[in-house]
Amino acid sequence: MNYMETLGEKAKIASRAAAAAGSEKKNEALKAISDALLANIDRIMDANSKDMEAAQANGMSAAMQDRLRLDEKRITAIAAAVLKVVALPDPIGEETGGWLRPNGLRIRQVRVPMGVIGIIFESRPNVTVDAAVLCLKAGNAVILRGGKEAIHSNTCLVQVMQEALASVDLPRELVQLVEKTDRETAADMMKLNGYLDVLIPRGGAGLIQAVVKQATVPVIETGAGNCHVYVDASAKLDMAVAIADNAKTQRPSVCNAIETLLVHKDIAEQFIPAVKAAFDTHNVLIHGDETVQKILGECVVPVTEDDYYKEYGDYEIAMHVVDSTEEAVSHILKYSTHHSECIVTESMENAAYFQNTVDSAAVYVNASTRFTDGEEFGFGAEIGISTQKLHARGPMGLLALTTTQYRITGTGQTR
Amino acid sequence: MNYMETLGEKAKIASRAAAAAGSEKKNEALKAISDALLANIDRIMDANSKDMEAAQANGMSAAMQDRLRLDEKRITAIAAAVLKVVALPDPIGEETGGWLRPNGLRIRQVRVPMGVIGIIFESRPNVTVDAAVLCLKAGNAVILRGGKEAIHSNTCLVQVMQEALASVDLPRELVQLVEKTDRETAADMMKLNGYLDVLIPRGGAGLIQAVVKQATVPVIETGAGNCHVYVDASAKLDMAVAIADNAKTQRPSVCNAIETLLVHKDIAEQFIPAVKAAFDTHNVLIHGDETVQKILGECVVPVTEDDYYKEYGDYEIAMHVVDSTEEAVSHILKYSTHHSECIVTESMENAAYFQNTVDSAAVYVNASTRFTDGEEFGFGAEIGISTQKLHARGPMGLLALTTTQYRITGTGQTR
Repeated sequence: MNYMETLGEKAKIASRAAAAAGSEKKNEALKAISDALLANIDRIMDANSKDMEAAQANGMSAAMQDRLRLDEKRITAIAAAVLKVVALPDPIGEETGGWLRPNGLRIRQVRVPMGVIGIIFESRPNVTVDAAVLCLKAGNAVILRGGKEAIHSNTCLVQVMQEALASVDLPRELVQLVEKTDRETAADMMKLNGYLDVLIPRGGAGLIQAVVKQATVPVIETGAGNCHVYVDASAKLDMAVAIADNAKTQRPSVCNAIETLLVHKDIAEQFIPAVKAAFDTHNVLIHGDETVQKILGECVVPVTEDDYYKEYGDYEIAMHVVDSTEEAVSHILKYSTHHSECIVTESMENAAYFQNTVDSAAVYVNASTRFTDGEEFGFGAEIGISTQKLHARGPMGLLALTTTQYRITGTGQTR
Repeated sequence: MNYMETLGEKAKIASRAAAAAGSEKKNEALKAISDALLANIDRIMDANSKDMEAAQANGMSAAMQDRLRLDEKRITAIAAAVLKVVALPDPIGEETGGWLRPNGLRIRQVRVPMGVIGIIFESRPNVTVDAAVLCLKAGNAVILRGGKEAIHSNTCLVQVMQEALASVDLPRELVQLVEKTDRETAADMMKLNGYLDVLIPRGGAGLIQAVVKQATVPVIETGAGNCHVYVDASAKLDMAVAIADNAKTQRPSVCNAIETLLVHKDIAEQFIPAVKAAFDTHNVLIHGDETVQKILGECVVPVTEDDYYKEYGDYEIAMHVVDSTEEAVSHILKYSTHHSECIVTESMENAAYFQNTVDSAAVYVNASTRFTDGEEFGFGAEIGISTQKLHARGPMGLLALTTTQYRITGTGQTR
């Protein structure tokens, strides 16, 4: 058994205790974790300061250092977020279907825990606790693999969670950290068939693609967001400007922000200068096609086909004028990563056509794409946003961390 | 673009027509396929005879040749099976959830087609039609990759289906065959990210493991079945014998047949000789532990730990006496492939414990494991039996070939 298999075996055995624990027991564990985080703020900050020192020595960017930093306020916020998960309904045990067969067999489909969940993520140490408690709430064991740069913080956070689990007589191994942060161990984790029921990568496109390419265990692909707003000819001008501006500039680094704005030719002359005025307060750089260039003049950078594929993640946008809703949909089908798209329109017909033909996880009529989020959808928490079609699609809450089982009761039936 | 990417691109474009087609149009296509199969029996048999000649020349086993053979009766049966799929309800368009957010956003979760489905399978040419029509009914395009030994049959069957699609003005490329049956092309298919939304292998353990290990597209693992019956102390003797005998001998080659029989020590003296008498009519070879050997004598082969991992697929069984339901469950958790398990018991408590702790796709009380099947579950058809936990678990009907999409309607909401 290699190192990862040892963790996998321990997690598998521990997972049975989580599956057998009722809602009360699981909530008791989560409350103990929240309390333990608050009781160990100094210890967590000490561990974090080691990571921060190394980060400074290695010349990590200020933005990245900010994501890595844990202070009293942030640890308190993490502990409070755990209590929000306590308040969520327990998904386990729900009967998702049930019927009687003509031969008298009673078939019930019951929601059960997934088993052992792997999470691979990058530097933010709050993910360590967020992901662990969601997995626990759904009755699973979790194996966490964070970044090398957060190893002291993560080790401490996992120890604190393990102590809390032990304090309520649950196995410590329900939450385990991969302490070896080398690439070989990560590769072993991706091939941990027989132990990991699912592996969820959380982070940048590079990490996600590495997992998709290397993993032999089932993976839920998350994240990439090349999102679009299409402003139809019939759109209300003010609403279209507000939605496009919000979707681009409210938080441009996140996956549900838009990267391309499509505009119907009949509204282009009014809409494009209006949205430009809104964008200007954030100095948004516009990559425009010929029509956009004609309307806005020299401030526009000519758009290239590469731009249409790009996730800028910044105050930068591609803008393209189309002849019809059909052309807008074709553009989206070609360039989108199938995350979130929006049509702004007053036409019932165009709204229906757009929602029926755009093949993305979330398709909006007259609302910002920024709502694609577990909290905004009302799930209370989020483990990520799936951009693939298997198992879970769109924002993933607790249900995505469960599976179902058929339980069949007979009176001696044979075939 | 390599060969597989070309097929993938064509499938992706064609899939939009399938997604846009209503139930009537899809059923019209399926009826046209059924009619075309019947109208082309001679042509299909001619193509099949080429495969049969090659099979004979290559010394294929009689059993394998039987699976490969298509005659008038079999083609008629395939055509009739297509009409059964016509009669199934269309899963597409169902609203699987819907709610109103406090900010006025109306969120609906709607069942939509998966997109493009890949199926890799072995020699039986009936799978070519069965799988294609299920994918079509659920609004998908399908790319089929059958075995080299069935290439003439499959090419002809796919041509007949394509002609039927064209006759109802749907794109031929909704059903495509991978005509290059070399390993490199299969490997390309397993890495067809961006085109294949899911790949489903159907066949032996070797094929399935090759796909699980090599694929970078999402895979649904199917098939392997190391299933168990546990006879509890409180079991009714006749019922226990009937279930164990049925689960082992009614069709030992299939995945829902059992491989190990677990027996509580308190019923062993009565049950084991009784089940042996039933097994004897099929000459079942028993691999037994020491207690079983003591009870049955020299006809028993001593069981090894390897036996507990084995899927015999034949008139052969491992038999092990346990002290308790807990021990039976531990044995199953260790050795099972998590397909189907059964407890025969009159104890409410043991039945509940067994169903709550055994981590398999289907867990039976007092009924044969042979019922784990799409038809027997009432799904009307089956694309395979998932033994993993993501997306679909247990027998997969049309729903497993769909995904969901969030459709959100607002009145200008922004964050």
